Amino acid sequence: MSRTGYVIGHRRPDTDAICAAIAYARLKRARGTDVTAARAGALNPETEFVLRRWDVDVPVLLEDATGERLLLVDHNEYGQAVPGAADARITAVVDHHRIGDVRTGEPIFFLNEPVGSTATILTGLYDDAGVEIDAQTAGLLLSGALSDTVVLRSPTTTDRDRDVADRLAKTAGVEIESYGKELLQRKSELGEKSPREMVLSDFKEFDFGPHRVGIGQVETVDPAVVLDQREAVLAAMDDLVSEREYAVFVLLVTDVLAEDSTALVAGEHVETVAEALGAEFTNREAVLPGVMSRKKQVVPPLEEAFR
Amino acid sequence: MSRTGYVIGHRRPDTDAICAAIAYARLKRARGTDVTAARAGALNPETEFVLRRWDVDVPVLLEDATGERLLLVDHNEYGQAVPGAADARITAVVDHHRIGDVRTGEPIFFLNEPVGSTATILTGLYDDAGVEIDAQTAGLLLSGALSDTVVLRSPTTTDRDRDVADRLAKTAGVEIESYGKELLQRKSELGEKSPREMVLSDFKEFDFGPHRVGIGQVETVDPAVVLDQREAVLAAMDDLVSEREYAVFVLLVTDVLAEDSTALVAGEHVETVAEALGAEFTNREAVLPGVMSRKKQVVPPLEEAFR
Repeated sequence: MSRTGYVIGHRRPDTDAICAAIAYARLKRARGTDVTAARAGALNPETEFVLRRWDVDVPVLLEDATGERLLLVDHNEYGQAVPGAADARITAVVDHHRIGDVRTGEPIFFLNEPVGSTATILTGLYDDAGVEIDAQTAGLLLSGALSDTVVLRSPTTTDRDRDVADRLAKTAGVEIESYGKELLQRKSELGEKSPREMVLSDFKEFDFGPHRVGIGQVETVDPAVVLDQREAVLAAMDDLVSEREYAVFVLLVTDVLAEDSTALVAGEHVETVAEALGAEFTNREAVLPGVMSRKKQVVPPLEEAFR
Repeated sequence: MSRTGYVIGHRRPDTDAICAAIAYARLKRARGTDVTAARAGALNPETEFVLRRWDVDVPVLLEDATGERLLLVDHNEYGQAVPGAADARITAVVDHHRIGDVRTGEPIFFLNEPVGSTATILTGLYDDAGVEIDAQTAGLLLSGALSDTVVLRSPTTTDRDRDVADRLAKTAGVEIESYGKELLQRKSELGEKSPREMVLSDFKEFDFGPHRVGIGQVETVDPAVVLDQREAVLAAMDDLVSEREYAVFVLLVTDVLAEDSTALVAGEHVETVAEALGAEFTNREAVLPGVMSRKKQVVPPLEEAFR
């Protein structure tokens, strides 16, 4: 068991999860608390780019959190947390998702806000603490905010996200649209991945009453990279459904420029998904016009339908 | 079903729960959200005094929250919430307790901080929103803060609580120690209560794994008012244990001047309580030196022991 606390995002970390962990760890250390930024899995190509771009070390990989002290960022559900989190001591949560199943024995700091990124909330926490955000930290936070909001285009984007991004971009010395495009290109670097890697690259698992549901998302400027190999992708999804006993597995292939998604499905409960999303599936595929946000547009109706 | 949202504290409301509901409702309305301050039960004598003192209307009584929109203050557990809360839509939480079992389908504002009162947190939210705290609202918030921290004497008191109380007292135009003494006197107005009313006046129920545990607290400057009628009090506790099937029921009689508590117990699992608290019970009674906070000094060890 270690003495330090670990600031850590969800499994299959994305850029907001990694950058929020680094930025929150820096803030806690600036305030005299010994914590280490950590990650619960491998970096995706976008996040690798971000850490290189801002010359920041990769957070340590935490494989088992049993007995550790954890500060969770960008998630608040054990099913999405590092293995062992249920047997760890959680001492803080900073997140922007639905309220999950974290329980504690004592009062802790827990801040969840309905905004587009954890980075947006952390910017506010720096302000509250009177700690200055340096250019490098601003670059990380901006990356988290732009990545999670698809460069401020996702319907999860709030005015606060826009204000924060403007300000962080100034501090970091970059221009939002051009830096955002660099990020989107990295996010779309899917060509070299296997179908299984593609399906799992941004993947979350939910327990909706008795049903376990997997929802993956690929955000890309070029959906054809995924859809051109749909049979292989569907086969990878079928494998996961039987390995992990999902009631259903939905993969959102989100076209970040057209601002809609194509859904692929695997598992038995396709009808429930179709009704919940008001979509018609043909050959296990449906177009979802205007759908960009898993969290806001897909999880709530699926949860309601499955409960 | 109503269109307004209800800002509401826990059952058997105390002064912090009521004053936080009123103050948070005012803040939300100042920011353009239609909400109504509500309560989940009868006022205690201290809270009645506070509302009279500051000339504030009693919040509406909400008896069943089914289908309503709720903003929870001073609690985040369904077991402590207004009936029907589990079938309501919870859209915000502001609290200072352990993280409980509230879950939502969508992201909401959820702020929990390890400070002495919900009033302390709300003062910060007024600041964040740039909304001025008028003298009346300052009086309410100060009352919540002083009541929950036993006039800044409880071990739950933080430097932030002290700073906030100083500032609120100035705005409200009262002096902390003298106003605090007025509150403590009201809190001690127990003489006219039946033993059952006394036991239930500040009472919380917890599910610790398979065990349901009741923990009541009487904060008083004169513990003899309770302890002089210990047989009647114990009989009332026994009744509650069998009515509600508690594994154990602990009543803390807290001497706010001596800064310790006497615990009375009912139910089968007295040994577990004794071990958890490091106390020795004689005739179902034990002295707990230095124990003033149910939340910080009693709930965590009991929860660990029962799980």
